[in-house]
Amino acid sequence: MSAFPAPVRTTHRGPGRPRNDELDGQVLTAVLELIDEQEDVTAARIVQRSGVSRAALYRRWPALTTLIAAALDVGREVPPAIPTDGNLRGAIFSALFGATAEAGVTDYPEERFRQRIRLVMADRELQKAYWSSHVARRRIPIEAALRSGIEQGILRHDLDAEACFDLIAGVFYYQIVVRGDRLDDDRTRERCRAALDVAWLGMQPNN
Amino acid sequence: MSAFPAPVRTTHRGPGRPRNDELDGQVLTAVLELIDEQEDVTAARIVQRSGVSRAALYRRWPALTTLIAAALDVGREVPPAIPTDGNLRGAIFSALFGATAEAGVTDYPEERFRQRIRLVMADRELQKAYWSSHVARRRIPIEAALRSGIEQGILRHDLDAEACFDLIAGVFYYQIVVRGDRLDDDRTRERCRAALDVAWLGMQPNN
Repeated sequence: MSAFPAPVRTTHRGPGRPRNDELDGQVLTAVLELIDEQEDVTAARIVQRSGVSRAALYRRWPALTTLIAAALDVGREVPPAIPTDGNLRGAIFSALFGATAEAGVTDYPEERFRQRIRLVMADRELQKAYWSSHVARRRIPIEAALRSGIEQGILRHDLDAEACFDLIAGVFYYQIVVRGDRLDDDRTRERCRAALDVAWLGMQPNN
Repeated sequence: MSAFPAPVRTTHRGPGRPRNDELDGQVLTAVLELIDEQEDVTAARIVQRSGVSRAALYRRWPALTTLIAAALDVGREVPPAIPTDGNLRGAIFSALFGATAEAGVTDYPEERFRQRIRLVMADRELQKAYWSSHVARRRIPIEAALRSGIEQGILRHDLDAEACFDLIAGVFYYQIVVRGDRLDDDRTRERCRAALDVAWLGMQPNN
């Protein structure tokens, strides 16, 4: 999938009008620059910085909240489906540690992650928009793998896959949000792994 | 313990100089007002709002970071020790749900909690100061109860109590920081409880 999550697309385009993808790229880049510089994100500033007209901005992004949520997600993709026909634990653990290593170090810089948390803590509407359009989608592969494990009898039949995801993901958030640690730090990763071992054991049948 | 965490105390006090406790109260109140109004917390603003002199402010609080961390903790106390000679699971779960209900609703308003996260996400030095002077202290009763459970053989002998705490606390943070849900919401509490049931099972011996 594209690095730029697609907003609602207009079906007709006048001749000579820039392509929607280009507009999106310019607008999202401008928003990300403002976010990274810790500037307030306003329509006026986006227009000034992106060179996109106010009319085009509003046509493509009627709500600033949706735009900021999309910008915060640039560089993050919905992870691929997790194979559920082999070692399920191994597959889920590598998905988790792969994803968080990436989030902490490479494509999605930690400082932007911290900025994202700041922005959503300041604005519950943005938080809910970001949750439903982006975070909830990224949960799907692991939740699906957990559900498959339940169906296969590898995991307890009465598990709540959503609650299990919260348990698993919460450990990583705790490191960044409360401890102020980095996910590429070895001690942090060991602690996360020890916690996930406990979570995984708790999901086993016959306890 | 006092609602105001005590900073370093000066041992001598000149006649007529306001008591340290009074100074602390005035200063902490001023800092909290600034935080709740989402104003930047600067020495100048604290002096202006509290009526405390700049000299007194710096004498009592040489570092602004320590002061902000203390202010963010006003109204939060180190929870009491958890009884470990009865139903350990029940005692830990009530400590958790009691503490988080309180954090979400009463003494410690949710909006201030969200402000706290914003501030620490913006300033890693503040985050580390807040972690070591406040959060780490509040973890002690539950970590001690987990260690007692390990010693008594109620919990697995090879558990890492610190990692288990992160697992448990992470679920609650995830609700507020990622989902944007409130901890006094029934569905949120049910989800947390389901996740903690999994964590608790994973801590049992003989898995």
